[in-house]
Amino acid sequence: MLTDPANENRVPAHWYNILADLPFELPPDLTPPAQRDHPRAMKLQLPLALVRQSMTRERLIPIPEPVLQKYLSWRPTPLRRARALEHQIGTRARIYYKYEGGNASGSHKLCTALAQAYYYASAGTGRLVTGTGAGQWGTALAVACQEFGLACKVYMVAKSFQEKPYRKTIMRLYDAEIVPSPDPEAQRAALSSGPGEVHPGNIAYAVTEAFSDALAHPGTQLSVGSGEAYAILHSTVVGLEAREQLGPAEQPDIVIGSLGAGSNFGGIAMPFIGQKLRGESDVRCVAVEAQSCPKLTRGQYRYDYTDGSGVSPLQKMYTLGSRFTTGGGHIGGLRYHACSKIISALYHHRLVEASASSQSDIFASGVLFSRTEGILPAPESAHAVHAAIEMAKRADEEGTAPVILFCLSGHGLFDLASYEEYLNGTLEDVPVSDEEIRRSLAHLPELDVKAAG
Amino acid sequence: MLTDPANENRVPAHWYNILADLPFELPPDLTPPAQRDHPRAMKLQLPLALVRQSMTRERLIPIPEPVLQKYLSWRPTPLRRARALEHQIGTRARIYYKYEGGNASGSHKLCTALAQAYYYASAGTGRLVTGTGAGQWGTALAVACQEFGLACKVYMVAKSFQEKPYRKTIMRLYDAEIVPSPDPEAQRAALSSGPGEVHPGNIAYAVTEAFSDALAHPGTQLSVGSGEAYAILHSTVVGLEAREQLGPAEQPDIVIGSLGAGSNFGGIAMPFIGQKLRGESDVRCVAVEAQSCPKLTRGQYRYDYTDGSGVSPLQKMYTLGSRFTTGGGHIGGLRYHACSKIISALYHHRLVEASASSQSDIFASGVLFSRTEGILPAPESAHAVHAAIEMAKRADEEGTAPVILFCLSGHGLFDLASYEEYLNGTLEDVPVSDEEIRRSLAHLPELDVKAAG
Repeated sequence: MLTDPANENRVPAHWYNILADLPFELPPDLTPPAQRDHPRAMKLQLPLALVRQSMTRERLIPIPEPVLQKYLSWRPTPLRRARALEHQIGTRARIYYKYEGGNASGSHKLCTALAQAYYYASAGTGRLVTGTGAGQWGTALAVACQEFGLACKVYMVAKSFQEKPYRKTIMRLYDAEIVPSPDPEAQRAALSSGPGEVHPGNIAYAVTEAFSDALAHPGTQLSVGSGEAYAILHSTVVGLEAREQLGPAEQPDIVIGSLGAGSNFGGIAMPFIGQKLRGESDVRCVAVEAQSCPKLTRGQYRYDYTDGSGVSPLQKMYTLGSRFTTGGGHIGGLRYHACSKIISALYHHRLVEASASSQSDIFASGVLFSRTEGILPAPESAHAVHAAIEMAKRADEEGTAPVILFCLSGHGLFDLASYEEYLNGTLEDVPVSDEEIRRSLAHLPELDVKAAG
Repeated sequence: MLTDPANENRVPAHWYNILADLPFELPPDLTPPAQRDHPRAMKLQLPLALVRQSMTRERLIPIPEPVLQKYLSWRPTPLRRARALEHQIGTRARIYYKYEGGNASGSHKLCTALAQAYYYASAGTGRLVTGTGAGQWGTALAVACQEFGLACKVYMVAKSFQEKPYRKTIMRLYDAEIVPSPDPEAQRAALSSGPGEVHPGNIAYAVTEAFSDALAHPGTQLSVGSGEAYAILHSTVVGLEAREQLGPAEQPDIVIGSLGAGSNFGGIAMPFIGQKLRGESDVRCVAVEAQSCPKLTRGQYRYDYTDGSGVSPLQKMYTLGSRFTTGGGHIGGLRYHACSKIISALYHHRLVEASASSQSDIFASGVLFSRTEGILPAPESAHAVHAAIEMAKRADEEGTAPVILFCLSGHGLFDLASYEEYLNGTLEDVPVSDEEIRRSLAHLPELDVKAAG
């Protein structure tokens, strides 16, 4: 938009920190035994600002001016009422969506990517590495690194790397290096030198590869996209802005976000959960996960690693186990094995709700949304779309007319191969058996179970 | 955006008709000899509203309420000052861009597609067919047809059809049928039955195939995307809106648009050309074409067909000949052989300027724009980006600081294969020789030359 003082006033100048309002203590992180034996892991250092942001009880954290200036290049993002969708499904509910796909990276992830790149650059880091699933986070970090003059390398889950070649091009446009994870050459080497194990690839493994890269290169740090408290904090600009745009007269009854590790759901929901915790509303907040990666609805609340390295801190989370690789399908961005410890704790205390959607359902809702509202949702974002539609229908059956707000976190223009499969009727759901979940969780060391107990 | 009366007031309620202000008569269209022998061609009928809009001298044409309502689902579009780009190139010029890529179709073409679908549906048409180059027009018509309940079939230039498979998926999402042009089966049949000629495909040929389809199917009409007076008229909402958003204090010195057949350039420029014709400004308006399809800068001003059928009306235009297929590269959307008769006449009378850009230059500027402003331009749109940068640099050399406005007509997320080529250094310019242009123009029948004389 044209420089417009009215607009600048509509972009929040701070992030919202849920820690200020939590009515319980979060279980502490634990140092895994392997880290005690591998002090080199300690070489990786979070910038002090991010450490502080993970711990402070301050409710509103000022957004640093350089980050705010970048936000203003595409924020405020549109908040729209989905009138055509409402009309199409014949609901009495009022459905609003906050659209976060209109920036260079195509998703909400740019909110924390810019903040992290800024803090790392300020702390003297010259290069960031990361792992990415569907590529939204990798793209966001590539854009952010270019903005703040950092080099960037992205390890992308091999399946997505192959299915979405243009994600690679976008990241290259922003000067990032991008490689598939697991690294095919390393895999070949492992296999040729003996009975090596071929890892099928998942986000935790991609982060592990990035982690090794960071350890091996001085001046390089590992940046993570979603589950950390500060990543969720930076994403709350989404929910705060939506709250402001709705105006004082419109209070949502239901707030919905898709759940990967937490920044998508947390970004839209945290400010509303805060209102609820402070007794200012009784909004329902619903995290929607993929049926193929059902950590909240079918995982266990216990200590687990945040990546696959075995040396990352152990956090108490709803998890399927950091080696979880079953399921599959096209929902790369939601396939993180666990849920952020803060959201996990809120869920444990029944302060947020969870649901899981099948791939066929979310693609159907994605197409319906595209035809009515004119934006093709990323499959990840389509989980929130689907839940909003389902909850509106349920409300109609119950004779209520709630105000529903959801985050349309990104566009699906890099996901057309999977939409093509859907249109061709060849998209299949990939159910996960209880046995698979049990086996994946069995990998967690006994210590963790004790710590969790 | 949230329903916002202030917003609605910022979307023009009418289109601007340049015919009201033209200081000269347009050369009349001529009926080609072949059409006199083929009365069936007359079966295709423009809705009366579109006929009137091509002829009336009324300056402001009210936008029908159902079309305006659709516009409001994504308009007003952003007008942004390209501060980061200005900073990067170190110019004193103020560069503004109007971004038209944020709708379901991804380009400005939805403005006329919706209007045309509305008028055809109102006139009782049940199905529209069309030809498309890069796919922007086909996608826009697919979206518009779905909005107004029409069936839609798109003939897409085979080269683009193969290079951009996801364009097909998008059109299928909106229930359109899409086929490559020339039709491979018809080509095979032609070759097997004798010394048939294989047409390499171009927009004029795709329109011709659509034209045959319309003739063969009652209730079907041919819709065209760009060159017709009414298509440009409907696109003027872009320029009118920009004029309003700039505010009374900011008067552009230079307005720039990419030139395919005319709706892109005409949409942004016509309202400003009107101001100039009425003596209210002395703005320069610059149409930027592809060096591989240089109708204004190297074509001839003479009568030619608007498509390849040989039965469409002859219009006096700057043209390379409707059989022009040389050049090539990735600029599918600008490869129409001629320039709209209105813009051609304005150019002939030196009321607009023209420049031509090479493929390598426009991709370089596209990448620069993406890195500074966070939007990846379609290669077509990157022509305007490149010209804006060049004119800003020239102004700096001359010691002036003009206000430059250009239309960023669409995003490049379907064009990443060509950006990948650019990044790999394998993108080559495809020069067009004078001899090729001479040979292509030689196909025009002698009659036309006389009529043009």
